[in-house]
Amino acid sequence: MNPLKNVRIVLVSPLYGGNVGSVCRAMKNMGLSQLALAAPRPALDEEEAQRMACHAADLLRRRREFPTLKDAVADCGLVVGTTVRGGLYRAHSRAPRAWAERLVAAARQTPVALVFGPEDNGLGNEDLAACTQLIRIPSAPAYPSLNLSHAAMVCAYELFLAAGQYEAPAEVSPEAPAAMRENMFDKWRQALLVVGFMKEDKADHMMLALRRIFGRSPLTVKDVKVLVGIARQARWCGQELQKQRAAAPPRRD
Amino acid sequence: MNPLKNVRIVLVSPLYGGNVGSVCRAMKNMGLSQLALAAPRPALDEEEAQRMACHAADLLRRRREFPTLKDAVADCGLVVGTTVRGGLYRAHSRAPRAWAERLVAAARQTPVALVFGPEDNGLGNEDLAACTQLIRIPSAPAYPSLNLSHAAMVCAYELFLAAGQYEAPAEVSPEAPAAMRENMFDKWRQALLVVGFMKEDKADHMMLALRRIFGRSPLTVKDVKVLVGIARQARWCGQELQKQRAAAPPRRD
Repeated sequence: MNPLKNVRIVLVSPLYGGNVGSVCRAMKNMGLSQLALAAPRPALDEEEAQRMACHAADLLRRRREFPTLKDAVADCGLVVGTTVRGGLYRAHSRAPRAWAERLVAAARQTPVALVFGPEDNGLGNEDLAACTQLIRIPSAPAYPSLNLSHAAMVCAYELFLAAGQYEAPAEVSPEAPAAMRENMFDKWRQALLVVGFMKEDKADHMMLALRRIFGRSPLTVKDVKVLVGIARQARWCGQELQKQRAAAPPRRD
Repeated sequence: MNPLKNVRIVLVSPLYGGNVGSVCRAMKNMGLSQLALAAPRPALDEEEAQRMACHAADLLRRRREFPTLKDAVADCGLVVGTTVRGGLYRAHSRAPRAWAERLVAAARQTPVALVFGPEDNGLGNEDLAACTQLIRIPSAPAYPSLNLSHAAMVCAYELFLAAGQYEAPAEVSPEAPAAMRENMFDKWRQALLVVGFMKEDKADHMMLALRRIFGRSPLTVKDVKVLVGIARQARWCGQELQKQRAAAPPRRD
């Protein structure tokens, strides 16, 4: 099963509808779908929430609401709270990357919750006590407090990666094999000699420089074909020039 | 030097002031400070931008504006564009985590740029051509397109971690040494026998279960002291009960 389906994002008494909507979008971007509000405020701006949810308005609509955090997480095996502050109750917090794998493993067997406090004050001590684990997102001491939806995005992103739902976009063309690269360097050597960029006695040295430049990052089969094409055309151009000169040597005035 | 000071976030023609402000906040949260707008639109909502920037309004104020992306990145060694789409120009994109270390290494020597396109269309082909590298943030196929400030947050977060600016919050108390843990198990064994939870013949088996439970996660010196305290008190309680019973054996009616 997809463990992300078992991850519940719980927002405790959020203040701004826009943030709730933005959290929905971040969730859907990262393959999460279960939103719960604990102790929601009656005055939440639904319109703003929908606007910010964008194409994730379905998550907003299907959200569940609970009178307290304890109710919202009653069936959850792991309950991970988020905090920016240190201090009592909070000293054992870890970074999202440190928890992500464990959360995903747990989510393969049981619902798990990721809990975010209100924008102004974060989770209070009573709510923290309901959490089995704490996450603290690494941030700059000059301004450690993240926007609610940004905090949710960072955690959701780490879960998404940990769940292995993501396949890196494959290079269209595979990396070129060594023989193909060597042939390319041969062609470049010939071309650079013919166009008069270098003389035979400096060629080895110069080719080392070229190898360094082209070796700095992977070259695909496609890349190598392009580079061979350039060399071939340059050599043709140089040879044509040589022929012309042989036919009509430049006048010496 | 701090490499994050050399990282420039470039927003190309952003539509919404709120997003620009949110990007400022995400940047400051992650230790970044250089914001540039390329080809800014004249109608950007400054008020909304300030509101969303929160305590990062200084970054918003100090932003630089350039007529084109090329102008905005003219002095940058690496120019990393962001994209959600695949296709020509975009096939070689990599995930933020794959680029972060290289970006940070480059930023120790030269300014580098992270470029984000307009909210509606992303970076166009001309702007992509001005980028030396491409980032594609992993996301769910059902809704791959992130909010602008969320995309900036994910990238900034990866850079912040790669720059090693973050020190994990230290546990207040170190992990308990083995001898201390063994003493704790001794105390629990005695206590569980005295309170009548187990008999001597089952004790070894039961203690293995307890070791498994307490061994599942690290125990600090402080944790162990708490657990030893519990065992000591329980044993005292059991012993007191035994004394009482010895003094006044229960009546057999």
